[in-house]
Amino acid sequence: MAKKLINHPDKVIDDMLAGILRMHGDVLRRCEEDPRAVVRTTLDPGKVGVVIGGGSGHEPAFIGYVGEGLADGVAVGNIFASPSPYPILTAAKEVDQGNGVLLIYGNYSGDNMNFSMAAELAEMDGHQVKELVVHDDVASAPKGEEHKRRGIAGEVFVYKVAGAKARTGASLDEVYATTEKANDWTRSIGIALEPCSLPQTGKPIFSIGPDEMEIGMGVHGEPGIHRMKLMSAEEVANRLVDAICEDFDYDGSDVAVLVNGLGATSLLELYILYDNMADALAKRNIRIHRSFVGEYITSQEMSGCSLTMMKLDEELKAMIDAPGKTFCFNF
Amino acid sequence: MAKKLINHPDKVIDDMLAGILRMHGDVLRRCEEDPRAVVRTTLDPGKVGVVIGGGSGHEPAFIGYVGEGLADGVAVGNIFASPSPYPILTAAKEVDQGNGVLLIYGNYSGDNMNFSMAAELAEMDGHQVKELVVHDDVASAPKGEEHKRRGIAGEVFVYKVAGAKARTGASLDEVYATTEKANDWTRSIGIALEPCSLPQTGKPIFSIGPDEMEIGMGVHGEPGIHRMKLMSAEEVANRLVDAICEDFDYDGSDVAVLVNGLGATSLLELYILYDNMADALAKRNIRIHRSFVGEYITSQEMSGCSLTMMKLDEELKAMIDAPGKTFCFNF
Repeated sequence: MAKKLINHPDKVIDDMLAGILRMHGDVLRRCEEDPRAVVRTTLDPGKVGVVIGGGSGHEPAFIGYVGEGLADGVAVGNIFASPSPYPILTAAKEVDQGNGVLLIYGNYSGDNMNFSMAAELAEMDGHQVKELVVHDDVASAPKGEEHKRRGIAGEVFVYKVAGAKARTGASLDEVYATTEKANDWTRSIGIALEPCSLPQTGKPIFSIGPDEMEIGMGVHGEPGIHRMKLMSAEEVANRLVDAICEDFDYDGSDVAVLVNGLGATSLLELYILYDNMADALAKRNIRIHRSFVGEYITSQEMSGCSLTMMKLDEELKAMIDAPGKTFCFNF
Repeated sequence: MAKKLINHPDKVIDDMLAGILRMHGDVLRRCEEDPRAVVRTTLDPGKVGVVIGGGSGHEPAFIGYVGEGLADGVAVGNIFASPSPYPILTAAKEVDQGNGVLLIYGNYSGDNMNFSMAAELAEMDGHQVKELVVHDDVASAPKGEEHKRRGIAGEVFVYKVAGAKARTGASLDEVYATTEKANDWTRSIGIALEPCSLPQTGKPIFSIGPDEMEIGMGVHGEPGIHRMKLMSAEEVANRLVDAICEDFDYDGSDVAVLVNGLGATSLLELYILYDNMADALAKRNIRIHRSFVGEYITSQEMSGCSLTMMKLDEELKAMIDAPGKTFCFNF
């Protein structure tokens, strides 16, 4: 049983949002129409709106990516459960300034259904809406079936590009096109060493042997592709780089990389992995243009990490380098 | 056995530093004289130097507090072990620009011995040095014996004040006086739900029953003051606020607060605690001037958190609000 510092299993999301909005009410506000829709207090006039969201339990995702140069609004689901269409619709309506809204979400059946329904309702209401589904996890479906893949930590890069592009004053079609390129050029893979639990039950949602790890496990404990003996950081780094580079041709490119901690894995370990991954990339003549190391999309107290790579052309370099500021991050 | 993503237990610190310096070599550099001494690449001319340090395993502490408006250098120890006097001395010499150096460290016997020896050696070498020992943990010694208390997450506020004051162009005596005030006005207390382990052994360094928590536990698993059944976030918040406010009179004051996660405790839980703590402070007519929620000083994969409060006068408000930027934080 995992121990959690909470008040009641049914109240965790409302209590968390109360704390976040109490502390960051200068930059975030709850929408009156739906308390699970949170938007920026100040919008850049005329900009295309960007709305993100998904289940909770991945903090700082997703609310931590609402801010200047990133998303304008978020729909907050329960733990590991998609938000309903209503907070998505509410956030979309609130951030639409007449130039349309891009909805970005990870490829999960609940999110697909609810975001698409919200998009339909918003369109019926006269809003121009486009949807972009992130599918960066190479472990979740084979090459050629990329549209079946889950969205994991690569979502961070996709949000960053969408937010930066929208801020240039681009149209909804232009923001969509650049963000879709970022999505297409992004690949991730994760490993898990220890499971996470749901606050509702406290019980681990999967189990891994005391000397094992699993490659390709999803952020909700979805099964991976290989279970094996715990390897060294260097071996893990090589495995993850190989898995990504066998799926997409990054050799000789400029890339952005993200070494993401899933919860209980320390910054000490993540920087060791970063160093080993940078070695592996150098051997492939892949140049790291920009890197990110830390907890960006977590799975409660899960132990493990993921590696994300995004190929960069000049446009995507400018987008990834553009300033972005939320209550969690200064990009 | 805790699983760690490392290469060899004896190499974790060097491997971590390799990753950090590879990624952040634009702002941090290793000193040639001692590879465990890391300093800023650019120093503010003429400023009093600020050197921090301690054992590793608390990342982002301590190296994550070296930067603009914070510390100028750090001595990096092994996991949970003080650095030797030499990296401390090296860092002090490198950041002394003729106006002296302030050494700041937590109150642990190894750190006391090694930092004091480094101070002596630096003085023999013609440097003007002052030492400031952080002792914010109210659980580690009774009121009236504050000098016996351990330093925990309150160190963050002390670094912040020292770095900001030094940047005003103040003398070493002035920086010391303001930082000592911050230290005197800061109190912390932590709780642990699950233990941490050393990468060298993988074994938990203490144990807590499956339905228990411990109040007052130190960041290396030092014994706390009460072991009890796991409580709700609200009860924990009230307990911690009471323990701090019984020790120091914060009622009616302006304060800075830090809700610090120890490793495996999620941001979701920390924001719930923040909200409950803010309620408890409001009842005491304590005004939150500024707050920080996240992982600031960790203990590997320990589950738990700490609360820190610092009373603020106008000077300390200005210091805590001053900009500060490291590879981990934008204050």
